[in-house]
Amino acid sequence: MTEKFVSERNVLFMLHEVFDVGGLTAYEYYQDHTPKLFDRVIAEAIKLARGILWPIFAEMDREPPVLENGRVRVHKSVRKILKEFGRGGWIASTVPIADGGDQLPHMVADACQYIFAAANYSASAYPGLCAGAAHLIEAFGSRELADRYVPRMRDGQWQGTMALTEPEAGSSLADLTTTAIPTEDGHYLIRGQKIFISAGDHDGAENVVHLMLAKIAGAPAGVRGISLFVVPKRRPESNGSLTDNDVVTSGVYHKLGYRGCPIVQLSIGDHGDCRGWLVGQPHNGLRYMFQMMNEARIGVGLGATSMATAAYYAALDYARTRRQGRKVDQKDPARPPVPIIEHADVKRMLLFQRAVIDGSLALLMQCSRYVDLAKVTAGAEKEKYSLLLDLLTPVAKTYPSEMGIQAISQGLQCFGGSGYCDDYPLEQYYRDARIHPIHEGTTAIHGMDLLGRKVTMAGGKSFALFLDEIDAAVEAARVHAALVSPADKLAAAVEQLKSVTSHLLKVAQRGGTEAFLADATLYLELFGIVAVAWQWLLQGIAIERALAGGAKKADQDFYAGKRFALRYFYAYELPKTAGLVQRLTDDDRLTIEAESRLFND
Amino acid sequence: MTEKFVSERNVLFMLHEVFDVGGLTAYEYYQDHTPKLFDRVIAEAIKLARGILWPIFAEMDREPPVLENGRVRVHKSVRKILKEFGRGGWIASTVPIADGGDQLPHMVADACQYIFAAANYSASAYPGLCAGAAHLIEAFGSRELADRYVPRMRDGQWQGTMALTEPEAGSSLADLTTTAIPTEDGHYLIRGQKIFISAGDHDGAENVVHLMLAKIAGAPAGVRGISLFVVPKRRPESNGSLTDNDVVTSGVYHKLGYRGCPIVQLSIGDHGDCRGWLVGQPHNGLRYMFQMMNEARIGVGLGATSMATAAYYAALDYARTRRQGRKVDQKDPARPPVPIIEHADVKRMLLFQRAVIDGSLALLMQCSRYVDLAKVTAGAEKEKYSLLLDLLTPVAKTYPSEMGIQAISQGLQCFGGSGYCDDYPLEQYYRDARIHPIHEGTTAIHGMDLLGRKVTMAGGKSFALFLDEIDAAVEAARVHAALVSPADKLAAAVEQLKSVTSHLLKVAQRGGTEAFLADATLYLELFGIVAVAWQWLLQGIAIERALAGGAKKADQDFYAGKRFALRYFYAYELPKTAGLVQRLTDDDRLTIEAESRLFND
Repeated sequence: MTEKFVSERNVLFMLHEVFDVGGLTAYEYYQDHTPKLFDRVIAEAIKLARGILWPIFAEMDREPPVLENGRVRVHKSVRKILKEFGRGGWIASTVPIADGGDQLPHMVADACQYIFAAANYSASAYPGLCAGAAHLIEAFGSRELADRYVPRMRDGQWQGTMALTEPEAGSSLADLTTTAIPTEDGHYLIRGQKIFISAGDHDGAENVVHLMLAKIAGAPAGVRGISLFVVPKRRPESNGSLTDNDVVTSGVYHKLGYRGCPIVQLSIGDHGDCRGWLVGQPHNGLRYMFQMMNEARIGVGLGATSMATAAYYAALDYARTRRQGRKVDQKDPARPPVPIIEHADVKRMLLFQRAVIDGSLALLMQCSRYVDLAKVTAGAEKEKYSLLLDLLTPVAKTYPSEMGIQAISQGLQCFGGSGYCDDYPLEQYYRDARIHPIHEGTTAIHGMDLLGRKVTMAGGKSFALFLDEIDAAVEAARVHAALVSPADKLAAAVEQLKSVTSHLLKVAQRGGTEAFLADATLYLELFGIVAVAWQWLLQGIAIERALAGGAKKADQDFYAGKRFALRYFYAYELPKTAGLVQRLTDDDRLTIEAESRLFND
Repeated sequence: MTEKFVSERNVLFMLHEVFDVGGLTAYEYYQDHTPKLFDRVIAEAIKLARGILWPIFAEMDREPPVLENGRVRVHKSVRKILKEFGRGGWIASTVPIADGGDQLPHMVADACQYIFAAANYSASAYPGLCAGAAHLIEAFGSRELADRYVPRMRDGQWQGTMALTEPEAGSSLADLTTTAIPTEDGHYLIRGQKIFISAGDHDGAENVVHLMLAKIAGAPAGVRGISLFVVPKRRPESNGSLTDNDVVTSGVYHKLGYRGCPIVQLSIGDHGDCRGWLVGQPHNGLRYMFQMMNEARIGVGLGATSMATAAYYAALDYARTRRQGRKVDQKDPARPPVPIIEHADVKRMLLFQRAVIDGSLALLMQCSRYVDLAKVTAGAEKEKYSLLLDLLTPVAKTYPSEMGIQAISQGLQCFGGSGYCDDYPLEQYYRDARIHPIHEGTTAIHGMDLLGRKVTMAGGKSFALFLDEIDAAVEAARVHAALVSPADKLAAAVEQLKSVTSHLLKVAQRGGTEAFLADATLYLELFGIVAVAWQWLLQGIAIERALAGGAKKADQDFYAGKRFALRYFYAYELPKTAGLVQRLTDDDRLTIEAESRLFND
């Protein structure tokens, strides 16, 4: 079986040739970095991933977490992984040097996250959650709170989590019932139930620090009454010792996949002794949490792309080595069978996977680039990048999640019956990947976020900026003969997206919100295809520039392969917009009209 | 959780209202049956399924088969299930009364198979394989062979299997290497390896009877040299005892799903003492086996539809009982949350499931009807039904298999995070269903079968007959006001299918077989959508007739619900043909041109 789970060449292509990460060093904030340093970071990330994450990919699945004596036992390597990630600075890689980090661009850090998750998504979730939770405290918490928690989370000693979901409040956070009662000592007493908390308890860390949503007694109803608290499993005392904080792990879920990381159920404050510390201002918790959620959404998109990437290399290896059948025009049974990669349909499945993976990765790198640029710019420019990031976050979360499943499924199909058996890793990727359209907001939630909020926000400015980005790409592509056709196709697809969007905005005016949003999931699907077509065009420009500049011989095949994946996307994927456009401009409101009692038989 | 896994009402709708199963009793062969009897059989099947299959659906998954001391141990209920199915006549339900069967129409028997598989697909595989293997011996074997094996297989004492696949011969049966050496005693000595044999060994049966493909020494190369043998695990002696027949179970696969039924690896004749008995003539084995394979392909389509059906009822129950969020135009957090079935996107997901399930079931019942009619007609009429069945078999296998996975995935999505956990059955359906696009011929194989063989066979007569069937349905539908629009849409889609087909036939002439078949998988997808649209129109006709005839009040909601599923199919699914047509008429041969060395990075 292959030992390849990611392509370093492709990561460097994205960073340098498509997104010019080196250009960031022109900004003061990044001026001490060099492109060469970024390459070394990528090489180190691959080394770390190969060394400690990849070898236990299957093992962590086969030995899932168990709840024993009130504590969740996880794979013995988790402790080592957290420590290595802490020691190596991977949890704090984007943190300013002044605060103990490496001040790396998000583009580089996210590329590393992609690499780690490709080696072992479950394992990569632990340090990833530490980074997000620490960032949240640092961004909105008091200095005191940050000093007490952040260093331990960044050195991998304490696990960070995001604790939002409750039994009666999943997608609908407005219905949270966990309560926080203020005390005179500055802390709050927390009481409630949380479910589906990733890495919410385990023996690989000394402590677990929950970034928890709760409602302060007397708060307004709904999302405007939600506050954010730091709720540790064990609270640090002034003498440095840790005291049990009345957070009990009441269950660990048995899951389809993603089994290397526990998802737990928590009972908080059953004995009236759970202390939480408010982050920022009361009733602003959801706004703060959105920082972590948005980072996590990009993280989900990366994770989905990662799994599909590793699955691709496994399928590619199998397709090269497995001999079966002959070319359809050479059926002589006396000839030896060919490697299945010689069959057009197997190549189609492999090209589909690459089209999805590289398209997704580019879209995610594009988002990371907006994060980086928003950080170092100001005024209108900063606003522009922030608006583009806001618009694209639901797309960058969902396209890789939904299409990654399809890509992995096609990878499994390349194996035939062997793909269904656990002698090969595809069945695990297939199980693991199914979480992505669910966690960090279901696909439906993101559809409504995109159409109901993002497309119209700031008077439609985000959407207009997105169209400008695409127009610029189309124009830049047209100077390359090989890209005239895809550029034209993208331009036509964008026109369709625009007219669908106008149509739906009219529906909103005429028919109300329900009709407007009824097919938001399909709108998100359409938007995703167009956005990824744009990303393929940007890759195409980088490819043609490299080839025109006389690419090294060793690189010729790399670019030629990418050209085929681009052609695949435009020939097989972009046409899917036709059916979506047809439906999205059809005013039959059947999903609204169908009454629930009619679903019985 | 719901106890509903199938809709009896819907099964009766298909049998009587869409496909007029009662009409078969006009033929002499079925004249002793009555429509009421068919209903009783269906009711009995549901009772049996609920009684002994459904209760162990999850248990069989959690306690998968293990290989112990050379024998595969399966769930203890398997023995009882086989006996009950034998005793109740379910294994021989379509066998003529004269031969000990019930002489039931395939429509009824296949509806029962659908019911059994909806309750527990893995469990239903055991008796299903017995029926197919017994039928094969009876159809092509000697009287002596039939007398020795068939009764024990039909009473559920001996397991039947189909033993085709080998380590180096999966999709490519031409490369089989299992050998058969004739002896003077009338039997052959068999030697070889078989893999992926469903129910290939287990302790729930006294014996296992493999219908095995092998090559007689000196046979022609390729598929023209394949013969069919009965190879029992233990061979019956003249005194009635059973002697070990040198068939060793060398492994049991650990699978993603479908875990209630073992899939095993066999070493045959390692000690030179494995006897096999030839079925029919030498070198005709593949032709015989195609009878069982084609039955099994319909069985896979049914199984896929069954799983999606049971998953739908689980999702429906959850959607009705789980309260979360408010309607998008009623966001007041003081109002109670609504059952999630009130959200348009959840209704969309449920309607999608129904559109796939009922469309698939109808297509399968249509095939069963062709089987029944081919049995009782002669000459040109018989040929017509046989040709239609041949044409539609790859479609009836693949559409439910591919779309069933999507339907189940949407069912899982209705549950949110709970769908990913094994507290609910969706994660199991999701795992179980993934086998269907693989076993009994992968989707790619069926695409090439449809386009490369079926569409052109008999001078294109099958395809022409199919077009006639659709034309007749379109004409019959147009008299109902509610069906004018879908009838027009189907007529337009058929025109597109015709022109795509002509286009591809021209490609075959100009560009050769490889170019012709490169996108056969997509052609199959397009064909499937059109075929299912046709089946929805046939259902629509039955619905409108019933409503025009003054349907009973209790039935009004049933028909109204089906009308919405029909509308869904035409509004959301049929438009998917647009993108497929675009690709299938595009002559960019990129999957042929892309050389395998370009897939590296």
